[in-house]
Amino acid sequence: MMKLHQFHLSGNCYKVRLCAHMLSLPLLLVDVDMMGGETRRAPFLAKNPNGRVPLLELEDGRTLPESNAILFFLAEGTHLVPSDRWQRAQMLQWLFFEQYSHEPYIAVARFWLKFAPEEQLRDKRHLLPEWQTKGNAALGVMETWLGNKPWFAGDEFSIADIALFAYTHCAGDGGFDVSVFPAIEDWLARVKAQPSFIPMEHRPQ
Amino acid sequence: MMKLHQFHLSGNCYKVRLCAHMLSLPLLLVDVDMMGGETRRAPFLAKNPNGRVPLLELEDGRTLPESNAILFFLAEGTHLVPSDRWQRAQMLQWLFFEQYSHEPYIAVARFWLKFAPEEQLRDKRHLLPEWQTKGNAALGVMETWLGNKPWFAGDEFSIADIALFAYTHCAGDGGFDVSVFPAIEDWLARVKAQPSFIPMEHRPQ
Repeated sequence: MMKLHQFHLSGNCYKVRLCAHMLSLPLLLVDVDMMGGETRRAPFLAKNPNGRVPLLELEDGRTLPESNAILFFLAEGTHLVPSDRWQRAQMLQWLFFEQYSHEPYIAVARFWLKFAPEEQLRDKRHLLPEWQTKGNAALGVMETWLGNKPWFAGDEFSIADIALFAYTHCAGDGGFDVSVFPAIEDWLARVKAQPSFIPMEHRPQ
Repeated sequence: MMKLHQFHLSGNCYKVRLCAHMLSLPLLLVDVDMMGGETRRAPFLAKNPNGRVPLLELEDGRTLPESNAILFFLAEGTHLVPSDRWQRAQMLQWLFFEQYSHEPYIAVARFWLKFAPEEQLRDKRHLLPEWQTKGNAALGVMETWLGNKPWFAGDEFSIADIALFAYTHCAGDGGFDVSVFPAIEDWLARVKAQPSFIPMEHRPQ
């Protein structure tokens, strides 16, 4: 069985679990003590020199980091990746947007406000206004797109929706108010209504 | 002919020109006055609500942002994208690494040190040590990988090499010393020796 080295409440790790569940691919979850520094120590760095989760490990020991690359690897050739070349490019556009313009503000604000010890947060508080501005700009770009389209790539739900759902559905943890983006709220509801949807907290038995 | 809306000395725009040149795909270059704020004004935002270059425009008017999504769109099905599924996933891993762990430090340091007016740089100078630390960490991850592999995905040159070359070859502009990474220096030379290589400054006649 494939292993997922992960921190359960990381949106980047949740993406992979949600995608795998929708594709009925079993994953053995290996919890990594990210808060305790495990991703920065030698045994983990031997598997991923960039020191991050999620990390997918195949049965033969090969490893793949980067959440959105893992999504593509798992879903290529399935209904979660458009078969049309232009739509596939649009899907990738949103995967790169998520990692460059969305995650560094919305996920990072959530991390510091929800998980970091108060004394460490103190050093980061001056960055909160910039995270708010840039995170809200990213949500604005999504709102514009969703104003007349149901999904981010083509006419069907894809891994672009999985990637953007992961940190948008819990953006409130980072101090963002998604209720001022009605098209995003409707889209979040459509994602939750997808067959085989699981919430972030879900753990397989 | 496809149009590329671009700023010529942006590495993200150079990636697209280099890839298109290697594939013999003609591009009409449309220079955007990024420094003058053109990417933040209504006519450009109508084409890309995220307000960034590069932006690819097809002959029928459809537009695609995000440099690495454009690379994938242009190169899918060619020798610049591995045909093996695992190698394709590794290629994507490096494309996401480039946008998350490399570009935000190495390209951003170059932008502020090389292009920004001195009075604006003053507000950013306190960030230079963090950019240096994280940019050098990214170069360290690349050095480790290239210690026993010629290219970033599989056994052949791919768009992962194009994406990482764009800002690594000019990392000195951001105050980085690539000469302390010998495997990266050898790889830069291999990229420059590829058929149909063009330097960043090259403009088609």
